[in-house]
Amino acid sequence: MVRKLQIAVSGLGRMGARHALHFLERTPRAELVGAFDPNPAARAWGKQHLEPYGVTIYDSYEAMLAHPGLEAVVVAGSTTEHAPQTIRAIEADKHVLCEKPLSTSVEISRSVLDAANKKPHLKVLCGFSRRFDASYRAAFDQIDSGALGRPTIIRSQTCDKHRDDDYFINYSKHSGGIFVDANVHDIDLTLWFFGQDSIVKSVSAVGVVARTKGLEQYGDVDNGVGVVEFWGGKIAYYFGSRMMAAGQHDETEVIGTHGKLSINGTPAQNLVEIHEPAGVRREIGQTYYDRFEQAFVKESNEFTEAVLDDKKLPFQLSGAVQAVKIGCALQEALRSGKKIEFDQMGDRIMDEKARL
Amino acid sequence: MVRKLQIAVSGLGRMGARHALHFLERTPRAELVGAFDPNPAARAWGKQHLEPYGVTIYDSYEAMLAHPGLEAVVVAGSTTEHAPQTIRAIEADKHVLCEKPLSTSVEISRSVLDAANKKPHLKVLCGFSRRFDASYRAAFDQIDSGALGRPTIIRSQTCDKHRDDDYFINYSKHSGGIFVDANVHDIDLTLWFFGQDSIVKSVSAVGVVARTKGLEQYGDVDNGVGVVEFWGGKIAYYFGSRMMAAGQHDETEVIGTHGKLSINGTPAQNLVEIHEPAGVRREIGQTYYDRFEQAFVKESNEFTEAVLDDKKLPFQLSGAVQAVKIGCALQEALRSGKKIEFDQMGDRIMDEKARL
Amino acid sequence: MVRKLQIAVSGLGRMGARHALHFLERTPRAELVGAFDPNPAARAWGKQHLEPYGVTIYDSYEAMLAHPGLEAVVVAGSTTEHAPQTIRAIEADKHVLCEKPLSTSVEISRSVLDAANKKPHLKVLCGFSRRFDASYRAAFDQIDSGALGRPTIIRSQTCDKHRDDDYFINYSKHSGGIFVDANVHDIDLTLWFFGQDSIVKSVSAVGVVARTKGLEQYGDVDNGVGVVEFWGGKIAYYFGSRMMAAGQHDETEVIGTHGKLSINGTPAQNLVEIHEPAGVRREIGQTYYDRFEQAFVKESNEFTEAVLDDKKLPFQLSGAVQAVKIGCALQEALRSGKKIEFDQMGDRIMDEKARL
Amino acid sequence: MVRKLQIAVSGLGRMGARHALHFLERTPRAELVGAFDPNPAARAWGKQHLEPYGVTIYDSYEAMLAHPGLEAVVVAGSTTEHAPQTIRAIEADKHVLCEKPLSTSVEISRSVLDAANKKPHLKVLCGFSRRFDASYRAAFDQIDSGALGRPTIIRSQTCDKHRDDDYFINYSKHSGGIFVDANVHDIDLTLWFFGQDSIVKSVSAVGVVARTKGLEQYGDVDNGVGVVEFWGGKIAYYFGSRMMAAGQHDETEVIGTHGKLSINGTPAQNLVEIHEPAGVRREIGQTYYDRFEQAFVKESNEFTEAVLDDKKLPFQLSGAVQAVKIGCALQEALRSGKKIEFDQMGDRIMDEKARL
Repeated sequence: MVRKLQIAVSGLGRMGARHALHFLERTPRAELVGAFDPNPAARAWGKQHLEPYGVTIYDSYEAMLAHPGLEAVVVAGSTTEHAPQTIRAIEADKHVLCEKPLSTSVEISRSVLDAANKKPHLKVLCGFSRRFDASYRAAFDQIDSGALGRPTIIRSQTCDKHRDDDYFINYSKHSGGIFVDANVHDIDLTLWFFGQDSIVKSVSAVGVVARTKGLEQYGDVDNGVGVVEFWGGKIAYYFGSRMMAAGQHDETEVIGTHGKLSINGTPAQNLVEIHEPAGVRREIGQTYYDRFEQAFVKESNEFTEAVLDDKKLPFQLSGAVQAVKIGCALQEALRSGKKIEFDQMGDRIMDEKARL
Repeated sequence: MVRKLQIAVSGLGRMGARHALHFLERTPRAELVGAFDPNPAARAWGKQHLEPYGVTIYDSYEAMLAHPGLEAVVVAGSTTEHAPQTIRAIEADKHVLCEKPLSTSVEISRSVLDAANKKPHLKVLCGFSRRFDASYRAAFDQIDSGALGRPTIIRSQTCDKHRDDDYFINYSKHSGGIFVDANVHDIDLTLWFFGQDSIVKSVSAVGVVARTKGLEQYGDVDNGVGVVEFWGGKIAYYFGSRMMAAGQHDETEVIGTHGKLSINGTPAQNLVEIHEPAGVRREIGQTYYDRFEQAFVKESNEFTEAVLDDKKLPFQLSGAVQAVKIGCALQEALRSGKKIEFDQMGDRIMDEKARL
Repeated sequence: MVRKLQIAVSGLGRMGARHALHFLERTPRAELVGAFDPNPAARAWGKQHLEPYGVTIYDSYEAMLAHPGLEAVVVAGSTTEHAPQTIRAIEADKHVLCEKPLSTSVEISRSVLDAANKKPHLKVLCGFSRRFDASYRAAFDQIDSGALGRPTIIRSQTCDKHRDDDYFINYSKHSGGIFVDANVHDIDLTLWFFGQDSIVKSVSAVGVVARTKGLEQYGDVDNGVGVVEFWGGKIAYYFGSRMMAAGQHDETEVIGTHGKLSINGTPAQNLVEIHEPAGVRREIGQTYYDRFEQAFVKESNEFTEAVLDDKKLPFQLSGAVQAVKIGCALQEALRSGKKIEFDQMGDRIMDEKARL
Repeated sequence: MVRKLQIAVSGLGRMGARHALHFLERTPRAELVGAFDPNPAARAWGKQHLEPYGVTIYDSYEAMLAHPGLEAVVVAGSTTEHAPQTIRAIEADKHVLCEKPLSTSVEISRSVLDAANKKPHLKVLCGFSRRFDASYRAAFDQIDSGALGRPTIIRSQTCDKHRDDDYFINYSKHSGGIFVDANVHDIDLTLWFFGQDSIVKSVSAVGVVARTKGLEQYGDVDNGVGVVEFWGGKIAYYFGSRMMAAGQHDETEVIGTHGKLSINGTPAQNLVEIHEPAGVRREIGQTYYDRFEQAFVKESNEFTEAVLDDKKLPFQLSGAVQAVKIGCALQEALRSGKKIEFDQMGDRIMDEKARL
């Protein structure tokens, strides 16, 4: 019989439960052996949906890490736990797939990277799901082929459907804000398409609370526009929104010196168009999972393959730190209304007043 | 001062009034000098909208033909008058732009051609407006360049928006039926794209009255599907409908041995898309004039130019006879439920029973 | 531990191998236990890709059927084996998922239905993959909701990418021809959208061999147009092609009295559009599997669920017989050039000559 | 006979020649009586194309203004002449349609407004062609109907096709830069959709010279991103480019609290899509005139109608000054790298250093 990766999932919330099912059901070379969540309700879900398939449900992260034969861990609990649990798993010599962002703090993110760098034989992946999406990969291949010339401008947006409840407000308490939580994907795509070694030159941002009153108490907005300059003549600009009427609309555009490409310029949930008296209508996906389900499954499978076959991961962990750094700078610029500048080494340039 | 084509319009109904305005306002090298309509209400419209610009309004076609200096006539009245008025204008030595179809009878259509052939110095054009549409012309250029290989299959549809009144029923009395009236455009496009000399091999059709009850009394339908084989391995198939919910949708597809093209596969009235809770919606044009307005204006201008500069018309009158022949055969096949076959000369093959 | 459906796959050709992998890797509630193929090369593939996961590879269909604990069989070998193997599996009291078509013969198809009817406790499913496609299901829901009014016209096409080799010619020997092999999907969709009990009134078809010379020896074409009337004022018309330049393009349109919908009107392989000097370009899927992969996986899972939970299959086997009947009639009409007519019971009306 | 507006055109360059032809040929209620250009080559064009139709060609603007019976003037020469010629025409008591921008200087723009305010009986229109475009008007109607809720975010871009020659470099000398010349349209649209009385709060911009080396000498870029905050919680962000590979791509998106709309999200030159081995391709317009030709013609006609019938112009001249003000601020922010801030009266807030 073939060897299967022995993996466990920490966190059985919305996304953690999906990760668990992806490893249980849709990752043929992996075997889900354990799952942990501090929340009894989440564990009850696990007992119902995972335990019958031989998955042990833990109420202690440490106990889960000690599961006999465990090789790898998915860290998918609350954002504040991402870094400590990842570091702890690395120390326990486990491979890790950690949900994004590593942390809402640059320093803490960097500590995860430091821990990983000490154990180069371990695979430590930050779960930027869009990296596994077929369309973004086709886009990267085009860019990489030189078809667009030198990539110069990136426009990218992460736009959620409006919710009438207070989900976004509660979420905002710990999410780090719209640029750290949502547009971090767009920042990661930028590093992918412009090159992982791109060095940020300046960051500025503006935003408003237009519909989801209450976000302002956490220094957050429901609509934000951020602009990032990179040294070497490259610019990325982002839009994040929690206010879409029709559904989720994540879109990216890469403009090179000799061509351009767009990803998801005309969003659609499926291939149906309806002709009715009011015109022609199509539905669009409601959530990011509607858009990226296949990418998440691909992520599980490629992470598994990388561990089992000791293959290179599709991207380096250092990029995840860089993405948090830029996301945090955007959020700070949003709050202060000030442009933040960096020198050619990527180190922040303090303005005169700040230096005093 | 430059010379302008002295032209008059016969028929000030829906389409005739538009022709009059196109020549009055949007055909710089033409001068509209006269207009005729037997209907007092239509003449009243002419007196209000045309006369102030120096256009003489006539209550007799013959009188209009006698307008001093008149060089050309647009024949745009009722279908039954197309052929006699065109022939009369030719006899009076006028150039003619005649609305489609020449007639609902093949024989009468042919008599127009005969009349025109006797006066080769006159320009006689049948107003197949789609021939002047920028998209159809771009399509023809592609086909003509050989990019698609040998054109083999054409799918083409003329689909009107549903009307709650009895317009289509009254219209059906004299229109010759859906294939003669509406799909004659698709047939004409077929002759353009397959070649004017294509010879029909067989014709068959089916149809239903689904919503516009009353059409059946005139042997007509509100949804018809027709199939035409041409000698040399070419097939065209058509759909005609009076039942569209969203608006007018005329669409054509040409499939060659090495490529394909579509015209108007995703209809839209303008460039706006609206994202709302029910999805993403766009409006589409409501009438054929919404779709082909610019083509009609181009038609006026090119007809004028052909006469003034003695240039070749963009297509020959003989095709219009051929189009009526195929349209009438489709309508007959619809009524009889029988396939109609033609020999390689294009002459109809009578079945045994018919021969007896 | 949970119970998993014990299933085996007969036929490890192109599609059979996919079925095997779908049940092995992407159908959590099923366990692939056996696989059979008469061809040593196919078995070698199975030994490499399936055996390591505990799947027994058989060189005898009967031996596979005798696999201990086997509950269900996928019949995915050559078309001529579909019916005998399905019947044999039913006799051995196994549930069956049989690839389409049941047979290229109406009579043989009916014998499969008869066998299944004798064992109503067995689930016997004909693998019309489009029935499991998310877009077609969304379309059905719209139709079923009454949003389009009464469905009246269906246009549906199955168009393969051109191949330079002789694949289609060899395939044509046993496939039953383009209408039986390819458009049978469109016929099945018609029965779904018009209602499973729709009764065919007439069938006619035309076609040409435009590029894949050699098809004519098997009475087949590379481009075919078929028209089917149903009693009660409904019409379906189909296009089948083996000559697409850009890739696979399967498209369907349903026109009701009060609205219309299209499925896959603007095909695309992914969400990328490339702006380059020649214009804006997108790629489209190359094969039916590019288009329907997720539908096949859904099919495996729903079949498994229906067996394990004794749920109704999403559609009845009788429709598969009806689809073959219409497909064969279209192919016959293509060859004879004659329209075939049926009475209101769906029984064929013989013309006078044939009756003698 | 009806009265026709006696109008003359100053400037017969690329756009001026088009204005002249629009008034000569496509504005039925206007009569083009004169044209002026200081350049002999341009006058030669006028003598060939306009003079034969009775248009007097002038080599002096003053002489043209003195044309007997002249009522209105189109000012379409070089940008530096827009303001002085417009003011001179107003003084001579002529109605004026002036090409955008009024000036590249805010102060000079304001002086035009002052001149116009002194003669309220004159119609003075700044030629923001997009205001006359059918799609933008349909968008405005949607917004105005409240369908989107409160407009909150506008994204708008003006993107020209790359040119291999030094056109853009020479043009940049006097154009005022990309934000003043190109994105001024997007700014004007913003004022339309957010409301003419919107007050700017801050302006920032970044840009690069990626392909058209030489622009930097004029403080210009070939790719610029600008962000404008308005008091009251509204944000507009712009992209301007001279580097598109496929053609002109002007696109706008308006996001409201309850819905969104896009204009020209999927650009196309016509309705043709070509399926070829590399995929599905469509062409897009090459120039802004390909996109806005009908809008320019509409502009001529509505200006004419406003004068003849003493109707309100579709928008006020003051907006054109506001647009120049924002465009110039964006260009300054681009050059300085500094954010520019305004108080709630729209007056610029000087930073401490600048105040000293």
